[in-house]
Amino acid sequence: MPVNIPETGKKRIVIIGGGFAGLTLARKLARSNYQIVLVDKNNFHQFQPLFYQVAMAGLEPSSIAFPFRKIFQRHKNVFIRVSEVTEVDTAQKRVITAHGYLNYDYLVVAMGADTNFFGNENIAKHAIPMKSVSEALFLRNEVLEDYETSLTIRDYDERQLYIDIVIVGGGATGVEVAGALAEMKKYVIPHDYPELDEEEIDIYLIQSGDRLLKGMSQKASDAALSCLQNLGVKVVLNKRVTDYDGEYIYMKDGSKILTKKLIWAAGITGNTIKGLPEDSLVRGNRLKVNKYNEVEGLEDVYAIGDIAFMPDEKYEYGHPQVAQVAIQQGQNLSKNFKALDKGKERKAFSYNDKGSMATIGRNQAVVDLPKGFFKGSIAWVLWLIVHLFSIIGVKNKIIVFINWIWNYVTYDQSLRLIIRPFKRDKKED
Amino acid sequence: MPVNIPETGKKRIVIIGGGFAGLTLARKLARSNYQIVLVDKNNFHQFQPLFYQVAMAGLEPSSIAFPFRKIFQRHKNVFIRVSEVTEVDTAQKRVITAHGYLNYDYLVVAMGADTNFFGNENIAKHAIPMKSVSEALFLRNEVLEDYETSLTIRDYDERQLYIDIVIVGGGATGVEVAGALAEMKKYVIPHDYPELDEEEIDIYLIQSGDRLLKGMSQKASDAALSCLQNLGVKVVLNKRVTDYDGEYIYMKDGSKILTKKLIWAAGITGNTIKGLPEDSLVRGNRLKVNKYNEVEGLEDVYAIGDIAFMPDEKYEYGHPQVAQVAIQQGQNLSKNFKALDKGKERKAFSYNDKGSMATIGRNQAVVDLPKGFFKGSIAWVLWLIVHLFSIIGVKNKIIVFINWIWNYVTYDQSLRLIIRPFKRDKKED
Repeated sequence: MPVNIPETGKKRIVIIGGGFAGLTLARKLARSNYQIVLVDKNNFHQFQPLFYQVAMAGLEPSSIAFPFRKIFQRHKNVFIRVSEVTEVDTAQKRVITAHGYLNYDYLVVAMGADTNFFGNENIAKHAIPMKSVSEALFLRNEVLEDYETSLTIRDYDERQLYIDIVIVGGGATGVEVAGALAEMKKYVIPHDYPELDEEEIDIYLIQSGDRLLKGMSQKASDAALSCLQNLGVKVVLNKRVTDYDGEYIYMKDGSKILTKKLIWAAGITGNTIKGLPEDSLVRGNRLKVNKYNEVEGLEDVYAIGDIAFMPDEKYEYGHPQVAQVAIQQGQNLSKNFKALDKGKERKAFSYNDKGSMATIGRNQAVVDLPKGFFKGSIAWVLWLIVHLFSIIGVKNKIIVFINWIWNYVTYDQSLRLIIRPFKRDKKED
Repeated sequence: MPVNIPETGKKRIVIIGGGFAGLTLARKLARSNYQIVLVDKNNFHQFQPLFYQVAMAGLEPSSIAFPFRKIFQRHKNVFIRVSEVTEVDTAQKRVITAHGYLNYDYLVVAMGADTNFFGNENIAKHAIPMKSVSEALFLRNEVLEDYETSLTIRDYDERQLYIDIVIVGGGATGVEVAGALAEMKKYVIPHDYPELDEEEIDIYLIQSGDRLLKGMSQKASDAALSCLQNLGVKVVLNKRVTDYDGEYIYMKDGSKILTKKLIWAAGITGNTIKGLPEDSLVRGNRLKVNKYNEVEGLEDVYAIGDIAFMPDEKYEYGHPQVAQVAIQQGQNLSKNFKALDKGKERKAFSYNDKGSMATIGRNQAVVDLPKGFFKGSIAWVLWLIVHLFSIIGVKNKIIVFINWIWNYVTYDQSLRLIIRPFKRDKKED
């Protein structure tokens, strides 16, 4: 049965995924001559760059997540459907969802990417990913529960299992989580857990390559490394994790580390759907698109954001899978749809790299701008401002700002609640 | 094995439960001549009077929950153990927890009360309780998910299943939830779900007795009734719910209502533990205590708060199970412990009833004070102030205040996020 959406006579664009790419496109087309249907499995947009602060008890999920219906409250032209997309039928121009099928005139795939465990089932089963607010909350609960449990353990080795934490992947997420954990160890643990010797806590950051933040400049990598080392993080470069059984992490060189918590931030892979032709897929499960974000070999099907792979002289492996590219592709595609509607010429996408940044801890961040690199307090404040202004909603901005000021002044992330989900029997039928 | 807690030479008071009663006692004794061990299954205190606002997407759990470790950061004399208490062994003076046993010199049972389904397993299985932040979040998710689902349903009757909501129990929680749902229907649904006809949504409040808020004055009951009716709530008095199969609610008089969501706020029952003698238990699973809150027939075992039943001329069925009684019993018991330590005389508990209040909606509340009853805007502002000042933590106060102002000005509870828990495979082993 078709999903219950009124026919308004306008051509329908179905957007799958309300991340940076899909949401930007939907907002830009909200008042256009198209009917917009945004399908997402969640009822909210999530602000990925701050997941690590949710995991580290610095922010609440609601501060960095925003309900789609609230964003589009005054746009009767945009229809939201909270549903899982199971298949695409490009021949019949249909998207099949858990709630029925949906016809489209144009389809935009903006499903982003998920954690890549590189086919290792053990790691997938035991590691903690960081690609959703739910996963971030799960990590928060695990960290706090394990500190509680460690207090009841008399054996030194067994205690290490609970208090040591290993992060795999030296990109922005890995660096930010490692820095935040190191600060929690330094500023929070001694007060919250006076019975625990914080010197016993080891935080490892493992990176298979020879430097951290490999998407950034060498200066940024060096600064991040020395910052983390100053904070007491054990940074391990040039080592590859090969397996994990929930207790021991095994490395390619034969060494191993004992820990109950392996945070996996080592790579991402495109969220593909059944029905899109295999030969559109390239490295990293991305969909090959032309300069107009049209998926190769298909008609009226577009891909934008992390899932899109657009050949480009400057980017051998495709554009970086970051928010800026997603937003700009959403913007460009919205202009092209408007051009299409008016019979005007479309514009090829061209990425305007405004720079990149990562934060390591209090007063510590690294920023690469087209004009050069800088670090320290000014970089940190710039990081805060850029992220604060990127968060959707005035109230969210205010609440994040209060939390940041509070955490900065008190040296404390205060949202250390272990809220376990309630399960009604019914749900387990 | 004993739980790992240092012997400090002081006599040890073990408090089970960190609700209003247990937390008050622990705080008052934090600098005393006793060693305090607070055992709770959660790592935070929850502010019960505002659960309904969490359920109604007006507040985040973190605004009304506060980590015990943060409260006692500067009190080395207070030890927190996050664990489930499975049994009490009064002969050996031991509490048995999931993490080992714990010896006590004095035991204080402050485990409060949980939802009472009056033995009906069907209702227990299918209804939604409201006695924890987890349950409140569950209700929030259910309400929002069902609105989403209803958009995909073309059949009128089937749609009612998803959008109608029934609340059973006309106490403060029932009245507050009904009022908040009615306001959501009036102010939020038309904007968030323009495709849904809000007139189709029915909100029922069912009360077995002949008036709402039976713990308050007749004037308060009357005012609450007319307020709710003005908001469009279908208040049903003198009807008893006998069964619920997850779709139909069956009433004693043979009538039934179709709904997927039955919110059960019809009664509470004491949280008892194995090991306490059966004959200490009275009506409502409460522990019979003397004027010093000592459990009858036991030595060095006390009970305070909702779980305590203290015979009293003024309160035939025991003191009301509300925050004020719990707090005052915690305070009185702390003084008695200090008196005991100094060889002074103890003081019998006497309840100072400062009044009671309930809120129904915007500018609508009812307040019973010893000096009289009042309602309307002033009552509502008083309700806000009293609750705001009762919340623990300055930052929480600020954030709740901002949320309230925001919601008041925008006619909107904006935290409408359906955040489903992440489950790692490991957890399901």
